[in-house]
Parts: sequence; structure tokens; C-alpha cells
Amino acid sequence: MQEIKKIGIFDSGVGGLSILKSLLDEIGFESIIYYGDTARMPYGNKDSKTITRFCLEALEFFKNFNIDLLVLACNTASAHALKSMQQFAEIPIVGVIESGVHALSTKHIPKQSHILVIATTATIASAQYERELKAQGYHYITNIATNLLVSLVEENIFSGNIVSACFEHYFNNINPDVVILGCTHFPLLLDALQGYFGINTLFIHSGEAIAHFLLHNFNIIKNPKNNIEFFASDNVDKLKHTAKQWLTKGSYRIQEH
Amino acid sequence: MQEIKKIGIFDSGVGGLSILKSLLDEIGFESIIYYGDTARMPYGNKDSKTITRFCLEALEFFKNFNIDLLVLACNTASAHALKSMQQFAEIPIVGVIESGVHALSTKHIPKQSHILVIATTATIASAQYERELKAQGYHYITNIATNLLVSLVEENIFSGNIVSACFEHYFNNINPDVVILGCTHFPLLLDALQGYFGINTLFIHSGEAIAHFLLHNFNIIKNPKNNIEFFASDNVDKLKHTAKQWLTKGSYRIQEH
Repeated sequence: MQEIKKIGIFDSGVGGLSILKSLLDEIGFESIIYYGDTARMPYGNKDSKTITRFCLEALEFFKNFNIDLLVLACNTASAHALKSMQQFAEIPIVGVIESGVHALSTKHIPKQSHILVIATTATIASAQYERELKAQGYHYITNIATNLLVSLVEENIFSGNIVSACFEHYFNNINPDVVILGCTHFPLLLDALQGYFGINTLFIHSGEAIAHFLLHNFNIIKNPKNNIEFFASDNVDKLKHTAKQWLTKGSYRIQEH
Repeated sequence: MQEIKKIGIFDSGVGGLSILKSLLDEIGFESIIYYGDTARMPYGNKDSKTITRFCLEALEFFKNFNIDLLVLACNTASAHALKSMQQFAEIPIVGVIESGVHALSTKHIPKQSHILVIATTATIASAQYERELKAQGYHYITNIATNLLVSLVEENIFSGNIVSACFEHYFNNINPDVVILGCTHFPLLLDALQGYFGINTLFIHSGEAIAHFLLHNFNIIKNPKNNIEFFASDNVDKLKHTAKQWLTKGSYRIQEH
């Protein structure tokens, strides 16, 4: 089985940093190439064709780096473009939806649980989570498109009155057993969401899920080096700045280029 | 002076529809080409270089249509790319910032008034409003980047608790005499903003301002036909759908292509 030492991470913008953080915390790689399509983000309110076109262009970008595996660290992209990307790629590409749903089984979540999926409009419209959940035997599902939560995270607003008002707007009278954080921005709102839904609600975080999924399905060569190179279609310094705010200190090295 | 019969309107997305509405209500043209770069919107949280590149590409797009004048119906684009576009264009291009500031004089706003400019991060960062206001003798200026208000409009949320919480977040203890709506999305929040700031606060709306500016500076040939063609880099049907919601009924005809 092919050794996985150097990976790529692709997201429309900064959301994938929450996935990167989990991969650093729970695995560690020799080398990581992170590319954010920040000039055209967000993808979550765009059309399937457009999202797929952007993702195939990202695939071309990664061809320059000889990566062993690509993590598609964006739910919207995973929902719409994963299959097309896999068709054109010579390396494995892993999306966040399959691994997120897979996490329900590994956590032994009962099949009759009420699952709330929160994600962008485009992810919900794809019905990809719903299909994967039903295939695993989960049928009590509520899907809510929560685009404003993406904007809150982009603006570094993680608590307070605006967050509460958004939660009331989206989640009034909904009492799920499990919430799937179906957008890579949402782990940054985890504390607020846990406070809102209460301690009995379980959260599925794409980052943890994908780390687990990679370790169980690929020949991952762990390495504490974590040499990271950041690329962005807009301002890469802004992306690096956000990365330094989001990531745990000391466990990685950002390579300048 | 060259007759202006056919105009183009460019915006990153749907915000320019508020400008289009004013131009229909207050002038009327034989033919209007509206192009929204919806695949890459919003521009307001992106870099100056990126915004300029996108705007120059839009200019290329309009070359296919023989328009007499282009309205740059996006404050962020006007702040960063107007001069570059004018350099490469053979037709007049009018931005929303100059005309918005010009409206203060035509409305005889006293020079000592407290002016609040609300706009995207990129528009505020450009300091373009501040420069133009100071040149007109206005020096008591507060600038606030209010990106979340763009997201609210994109989600069709115009009133209620989220809107109030956002206003409290951005405008706590600010009592302006005049508010410049420095983003073409914001006229849709006018009722809520007027309610928040009170009836003594005056609002400057880019659409009205630019209609006035065009009538006073160009040889506009008014025409009630208002034949509109919509184009978008993402899903054009979604743009047309929003247009039908925002525009006054009966005063225009959308041409299919």
C-alpha cells in the first residue's frame, strides 16, 4: 500500500484550517501543501457547475507538488466535486462528507438518533449528507442551511448576541441528539453550539473524522515535522495570519516561498 | 456631447440591482446590460490586486456589447479599480463613491455634520470615501466595515433579532447626522437602519446619487423601454430571480438570450 508522507489540503478559503489543525494534532505529516481559493470564496452559495470547475482548477494546481493524497477540506466542494476530481486524479482524494458520516458508526451512534446537519446552502442542496446517512441506516435527519454562521466565523465572531440571534433563527425548537458540523468553519463555533444545544448533544467534527478515516484507510507515515506551505488565490499573507491564530502553537513550521 | 442610450452595469453580484432599480425608477434607458460576477462574489473581503484583476476582466466582457457608458455599481470595485478601468476603457465609467459624496453637496449637508460611512472591509481599507469627503470639506467622519450586513442581505434577512444584534455590534453609541450606504446591498436594510438611527438621520443611497450624477454630467437619452439583459459568471437564473424580487414591477423587460 502506497506510503502517504506528503499531503495536499484544498479549501475555498480558511475553513480548511480547522481540518489542518486536526491533522496536525492527531497525525502529523512530513509535508503539507495548503491551498485556499480565497479570491473566489465562499463556494457555499454557488452553483454545482461553478464549484466543480473551481475544484478541477485546484487539482491542476496541486499537480506541481507531487503530493501522495489530497484532502478536500471543504464540505461544499466534497458534496459537488469529489467524484469529478477523483476521475481526473492519479492520487487518492478524500472528502469530508464520507468520513464525517463514517464517524457516526465508529462512535456507535444509535440508528434512531435525531441527526441535525448544518452546512452551506450548496452542501444541503446536494443532499449528499442525507444520502450517505440513509445508506448507513440513519433516517431521522434535519438539514439546515446556515450560511450566516460562515460569515460569523469569517468575521471572527464566535460568541455574543449576534451568534445567539443566529442560533435562534436557525434552530428554534430543534433538539437533535447529534449535530454534524457540515462546514469546516463550524468547529470554531463549537463552544457556542454546545452551550446552545446542551451537553447531551454530540457533535461530529470533520477534522477529527477525517484524521480517523485516513489512519484507518491509508498507509499514513506519521511525522512530527509538519512542514506547511500555504498558497492562496487572493492574499496569502492574510491566510497565513488566520492560520497562526487558529493553529496550536509549536507543532508545525510554516515554510516561506 | 455623446448621447447615452445603452449602458452597462457591473457588480460583483446582486448588490448592483439596487443601483439598477434607481436607474429604472429615476431615468430609464433604451437598453441595459447587467453583469454580475456571482461566481467570485463577494469582493468586499478581498485584496486590491484581486479586485482590480476581476474588474478588468469584466471590462473585457462589456466590450462585446457596444455600451455608451458603464456604471460600476459596486463600492468595493469603485474604491479599488475605477481608475485602472478608466485607463483601459474607451467609454466613460462612473463609480458609486464619487457620486455618493457629490450627493452631500446637492443635498446641502452642513460641513460640520457627523458622517458615518458603512461599507465592506475592502472599501473602508481603501480610504476612498474618507479622501473624497475631506476634499469636499467634511472632516467629522466615522468609518465602519460592516461585512455581516452584506451577508444578511444575501440571505434575504432585512429585519428581526439578527439585524438588531448586528446594528448593536457595529453602531453602539454612534449618533451620526448622515449615513452613507457605502455598499450597494445596504439600501435593502434602509428601513431597519432608519428605525435604528431615528428619523433625524439622513441616508445617502448610491442608486439615487448616481442617477442624479448621470443626469447632470452626461447627455442621457431617457427611454422608458428598459430592455435589460442579465449575465452572470455563476447561475444567471438565480440573479434574474433576485432581480424580479428587488425591482419594481412593470417598468422594465428582461430579454432572454
